[in-house]
Amino acid sequence: MGNDLRALDQLFARGADTIRGDAAGILIGHDAISEFRQGRGGAPARNILHVEIVHISDDAALVIAITAPLTGGRGQQTQLWRFEEGSWVVAAAHVALPAPAVNRSIWRTVGTPLVAGIAAGVLSGETVAVKDLYDVEGFPVGAGIPTYLAESEIATATSPAVAALLAAGASITGISQTDEFAYSIAGRNPHYGTPPNAAVLGAVPGGSSSGPASAVATGQASIGLGTDTAGSIRVPASYQGLWGLRTTHGSVSMDRLVALAPTFDTVGWLTRNAATMRTAAESTLDTTLQRAVEQRFVVAPALAAYAEPAVAAAFDALVAGLSTEDVDLGDIDELFLTFRTVQAAEAWRTHGAWIEAHPGALGEDVAGRFAFASTITPEQESAGRKALGAARTRLEAALGDRVLLLPSASSVAPSVNADAELIERTRQGTLRLTCVAGLTGRPALSVPLMGVHQPGSLLDAPVGLCLVGPRFGDLALIDVAEGLTPSG
Amino acid sequence: MGNDLRALDQLFARGADTIRGDAAGILIGHDAISEFRQGRGGAPARNILHVEIVHISDDAALVIAITAPLTGGRGQQTQLWRFEEGSWVVAAAHVALPAPAVNRSIWRTVGTPLVAGIAAGVLSGETVAVKDLYDVEGFPVGAGIPTYLAESEIATATSPAVAALLAAGASITGISQTDEFAYSIAGRNPHYGTPPNAAVLGAVPGGSSSGPASAVATGQASIGLGTDTAGSIRVPASYQGLWGLRTTHGSVSMDRLVALAPTFDTVGWLTRNAATMRTAAESTLDTTLQRAVEQRFVVAPALAAYAEPAVAAAFDALVAGLSTEDVDLGDIDELFLTFRTVQAAEAWRTHGAWIEAHPGALGEDVAGRFAFASTITPEQESAGRKALGAARTRLEAALGDRVLLLPSASSVAPSVNADAELIERTRQGTLRLTCVAGLTGRPALSVPLMGVHQPGSLLDAPVGLCLVGPRFGDLALIDVAEGLTPSG
Repeated sequence: MGNDLRALDQLFARGADTIRGDAAGILIGHDAISEFRQGRGGAPARNILHVEIVHISDDAALVIAITAPLTGGRGQQTQLWRFEEGSWVVAAAHVALPAPAVNRSIWRTVGTPLVAGIAAGVLSGETVAVKDLYDVEGFPVGAGIPTYLAESEIATATSPAVAALLAAGASITGISQTDEFAYSIAGRNPHYGTPPNAAVLGAVPGGSSSGPASAVATGQASIGLGTDTAGSIRVPASYQGLWGLRTTHGSVSMDRLVALAPTFDTVGWLTRNAATMRTAAESTLDTTLQRAVEQRFVVAPALAAYAEPAVAAAFDALVAGLSTEDVDLGDIDELFLTFRTVQAAEAWRTHGAWIEAHPGALGEDVAGRFAFASTITPEQESAGRKALGAARTRLEAALGDRVLLLPSASSVAPSVNADAELIERTRQGTLRLTCVAGLTGRPALSVPLMGVHQPGSLLDAPVGLCLVGPRFGDLALIDVAEGLTPSG
Repeated sequence: MGNDLRALDQLFARGADTIRGDAAGILIGHDAISEFRQGRGGAPARNILHVEIVHISDDAALVIAITAPLTGGRGQQTQLWRFEEGSWVVAAAHVALPAPAVNRSIWRTVGTPLVAGIAAGVLSGETVAVKDLYDVEGFPVGAGIPTYLAESEIATATSPAVAALLAAGASITGISQTDEFAYSIAGRNPHYGTPPNAAVLGAVPGGSSSGPASAVATGQASIGLGTDTAGSIRVPASYQGLWGLRTTHGSVSMDRLVALAPTFDTVGWLTRNAATMRTAAESTLDTTLQRAVEQRFVVAPALAAYAEPAVAAAFDALVAGLSTEDVDLGDIDELFLTFRTVQAAEAWRTHGAWIEAHPGALGEDVAGRFAFASTITPEQESAGRKALGAARTRLEAALGDRVLLLPSASSVAPSVNADAELIERTRQGTLRLTCVAGLTGRPALSVPLMGVHQPGSLLDAPVGLCLVGPRFGDLALIDVAEGLTPSG
């Protein structure tokens, strides 16, 4: 009960089969369990109200305890104890604690619903987690930053992207968390905590649409309304096994929405299946502008080279079963630098004045990114915009009407305890993969089609297959992707 | 997986030791588990993602399954299977499902927090569940009725009872559910569902402050701000093992608060311990008006006779250890009828016009109660008010400055599946117990000091000891009660 880590390590059986589950997921193996305990920063304090022992045999018993956390409510612990090598040890444990009123790492404000759908429609029954960048009438916008929230006026109207879902009958469950000013793909918010990754216990959720992604992956909403500048929908979709669509740049109004870098900012959704994604997209996009897309796939080997080995292997195995052509997109590092220069210049233009007026309002990571953004000179921005025009021309010529396939992220979701080197390496890889859609304004759809085995886990960690299609091919891309799924 | 009740009954071992736990609590015994399944109206549909089997012996195995509910997220089932009498059966099961974004039976709107405390104070760190009768600036009031909510204006100021807690540093976690117009002590809301009883699996939570009570009992808030007309704080406190204080009538402003019967309506709180109750009360009450109360107890045998046998036995055992005198309060049925007549006349005066203008807005139970209320004639009300004056005089003379002890409710919390006869009998009994404080305007404090064994449960079901003290003895009553607790 005292969270004595050494004692707990000794109480749990030493083998690779020792198993521990809680609301976040299941870990297998003594070492994985031990590592988890060291990362969680202390167990919730609790008293034992009652212990029930189910005798199994001379060397096995099931011990069921009703616990009373000091913060109220009741928990349950079911443990299989075995007598091994002269002492009793836990071979399996299932731990349950009372749920909080709301998970503040996922949500800022929640209702039942917070805003009801306007009328019965194709999205009736669907529940939306709105990223905390969009205006929702009657509520302020926080953009992941408490200081920003405290100064935010109550919105007097609702953002068009939100209104489209309400008009189609969806209700808003709540306003959900985001990385600060959406300027990260990790999904770690220093103020509200890191939302859970529903697919990989102890891993980051992916960002910046972290709250909507975790809300959908945990089943707390069916549609996550997010934004994607440099991967903010595709990365959390990949990390948590969701469908994630970054729409064609300019196809959905960005009114009443906190911007980051308008040249690249897009609206998009996260869902658990293709059907919900299609309905959300059809309810929002101007369908008269949408175009057909043929099932002609291309792969850019120089891009896929930025994936970690296990992801590259899964990607290679997947595309080996498809008919694809190789395409040369030029120097990928140069593409990324072009994207980053224009993005940083615009991000500072959008938020620099506010940040300078509010020292200390941002956490270290995002503050550091904006500090870099503030260093972009007008000359650098100008050169970046020139390079952007050239890159677009080159990429459009190379891709044409075809669909580019690539991994949605360079890795599976890193552990929240991963070292800085791994975090930075996978981030650099992922941003190179995601920048092609950003530079071209093309739609990009992440589809949960790959998995990578993880030590300590019974289930594979998901990775998305990303389809980048021609502009205004958003809806057609969903059809193409569905053709690739086992049920499609 | 198909929720085939007969098949599940056969799969679970037939004995009295078979055990099943989930987030709501633990049941023991095949029959209790079977009864629970029949009452729940179907298990959530789910697929199995992975099954891990831990071999124990030739006739025992632990089976751990990762499930994927169709509504998203992941669950876990840990089952002990044993080979008994020629077949494999489940001897113990621990079932976990993903938590919803918010439990809509407890809450209407939740934030992290919804409203922050105004400044650091004695209630800093405390979290409040506000019954959906109070104005909270920026939000509408629902009074437990969706039709009422839909027409409700956004509050432009905050009710004094809410503001007092905010001023002392508490934050508001959310707006929580109530029985419709607070006109019930059951805690069943036909629109939002029945909040869980955190102390007794499958039992009603008690009402009408059902949402605040369940929020505090489950640990989702530390202070429930409720109201009490005929027991709406004392009954849920009793049913869920909480401290519950109905304040002296008139001692806390009822401004910006949906009334029921103003002659009896009071503000009050639900907490898990005496210290939090004292701080909430001190932050709200005008302490200069508060008086001292001596530890002189009286018991009214004619009142306690309305308790069910198990509760009466627990009460008798408790007061046997105290120095008490008997007191005669007159005809209890007559007291209750007096209370009920005035309450009903006022309830109809408060809400009759709205109810007549909104046919079908209320559920059957509360609609029926208002239908009765509408039949009270002016002559009956006038006679009731005359009887009320006489009753007050008689009760004040009988009680004086002493503290009346009685059970807070006539029974432990009835099962949600209890038959109508039991529900009505315990309700009639409870209302007779609660009406003394209502008639006199005296403060009444429910303290979780009793328990009754329940078949199918490992823990006793709680019952409150109620202390009814002299007017404006609210704070003193908390001290007196603490002297009765094991740690006091």
